[in-house]
Amino acid sequence: MSDTKLFTELLDFIRSETDRHLKKLDLPEEPAYLYNPIRYALAGKGKRLRPVLVHLSGRGFDADPDDLMHAGMAVELLHNFTLIHDDIMDHDDTRHGKPTVHKKYGTEAAILTGDSIFTLSQLIIGQVQSNTVQALQAFNKASLTVCEGQAYDLQFEGDATVSLDQYLDMISRKTGALLSLCAELGGILAEKSDDVCAELRSYGLNLGRAFQVQDDILEIFSDEENLGKSLESDVAADKQTILTILARKHDGWDEIKNSDADISTKRERMRSFYIETGVEARAREMSRGYIEKAKDSLSVFAGEHKKIMDQFTDFVLNRTH
Amino acid sequence: MSDTKLFTELLDFIRSETDRHLKKLDLPEEPAYLYNPIRYALAGKGKRLRPVLVHLSGRGFDADPDDLMHAGMAVELLHNFTLIHDDIMDHDDTRHGKPTVHKKYGTEAAILTGDSIFTLSQLIIGQVQSNTVQALQAFNKASLTVCEGQAYDLQFEGDATVSLDQYLDMISRKTGALLSLCAELGGILAEKSDDVCAELRSYGLNLGRAFQVQDDILEIFSDEENLGKSLESDVAADKQTILTILARKHDGWDEIKNSDADISTKRERMRSFYIETGVEARAREMSRGYIEKAKDSLSVFAGEHKKIMDQFTDFVLNRTH
Repeated sequence: MSDTKLFTELLDFIRSETDRHLKKLDLPEEPAYLYNPIRYALAGKGKRLRPVLVHLSGRGFDADPDDLMHAGMAVELLHNFTLIHDDIMDHDDTRHGKPTVHKKYGTEAAILTGDSIFTLSQLIIGQVQSNTVQALQAFNKASLTVCEGQAYDLQFEGDATVSLDQYLDMISRKTGALLSLCAELGGILAEKSDDVCAELRSYGLNLGRAFQVQDDILEIFSDEENLGKSLESDVAADKQTILTILARKHDGWDEIKNSDADISTKRERMRSFYIETGVEARAREMSRGYIEKAKDSLSVFAGEHKKIMDQFTDFVLNRTH
Repeated sequence: MSDTKLFTELLDFIRSETDRHLKKLDLPEEPAYLYNPIRYALAGKGKRLRPVLVHLSGRGFDADPDDLMHAGMAVELLHNFTLIHDDIMDHDDTRHGKPTVHKKYGTEAAILTGDSIFTLSQLIIGQVQSNTVQALQAFNKASLTVCEGQAYDLQFEGDATVSLDQYLDMISRKTGALLSLCAELGGILAEKSDDVCAELRSYGLNLGRAFQVQDDILEIFSDEENLGKSLESDVAADKQTILTILARKHDGWDEIKNSDADISTKRERMRSFYIETGVEARAREMSRGYIEKAKDSLSVFAGEHKKIMDQFTDFVLNRTH
């Protein structure tokens, strides 16, 4: 079996174990108004990338497997909560090819569903046995930072003065903080030193930056059916992405951005513009740069485990969806 | 100084100390999109009844004052979070005479403001030193129960088959669970036995039931300016209250409920109907009944402190707003 095949097996196993434990959550039937949308949200076919990172990081330090499972479920629930509320705020109608929670159950139920999934995540992270309080504080500090990132994202809508630094700060919070938490939890649950935890946070933060830059690129360049899922609402809201930020400095951008062509024509024109001006290449280069930076922090892991972490890091860069 | 005067002083002191500590929360300026509405929400002139209960309960067992202050702030933040999201779900435009957060800052910012205040509450409850994990688990169990109560409230809208038992279950969750938590936290932070904590929960639960029944009555019978604040939206949404549940059994109710008279005429007619049919009297009797039940649990407190708790319990029954 090849190395890649084994790595894929490992990821699949962590993903299916996470799903199995999420299914085992003893959720009541009533009130159906609340628990039906919760079940709907959790049945989504997510990549479970965040629990995977928690397990990979924690296994590198022999953290307790029960603790890692609880932490993995908690970060996945936290992630789901942010998606549900973000989809309301961003007026997105579909996710992974299915109607978003608010589209299917209404905004009122979706707000409450997000709130409850967030609360469930608190109950589950509270069940870890090692360094419980430190894990909880890290969990909630990261949650607040994610809220700040989403606030900047909304605040920046339609603001053509937003700088590259402001964009990078926004994605560090919105996407970086959660991956940073995932990596850090591995260290916290293994009772590693503050220095090791700081290095893990740095790893996750740079991985998150790479991930988000990559996401911005995939949103417009991927041909997969479920991608470009929120492109329409993003363009409508005039969201800042790495591509729009870099494109702004080139002549002809305003014309494309402000044209009233239909969304698929606009998408084609944007693609061509990003390629011709070198914006796409520069964005890909930035993503790779953050991946390299992330890898620099992986020396906290012993040789063999470091290889797995390297592989995971490349996997995030090379994903196509 | 009279007993009543001293009691009022005590309440005022706890309230102003809570406000002082909430003001001292080191909230950043940016993103203004998030922190401006958070400041706005926390500057509200709430009664701080929930922190008062945490302090009164905990002082009866000599719990650590720092822990009580943290727990008091956390429950007040939790309460504020639920109000902000409930106001969105219930389409309420004003609270305490001021525009609601979503009315002033928009639904998107209000969702995020609620999420962040809830996260802040987690960070603060996580700072208690005694029985930290138990306090956190109680805090989040109560939060989930409050979400369930709100779900039932929304699920019951316009459903004329909702029974008295279903209504009581709904308010036990929506209002009872949080007051139950407040009383219990006093015991948890003083490291009291499970039996004492169960008695405290029972006290808070019955106090909460009395409080909500009272609230339903005040909503329509109080003449104070800021009351009847959400009557219009409640009537529009056909919300279940103790009065509508009891009134439904009497002839003539449907006519009043379904009439298209303006809101103040409708309110007058409802008042008369509730009085003539004895519905108002029965509701007040129920509220008093829960207050008496609540008092039965107060034997966990020593003599002198029990008197203060009795006084607090009567204070909740006799409030006019």
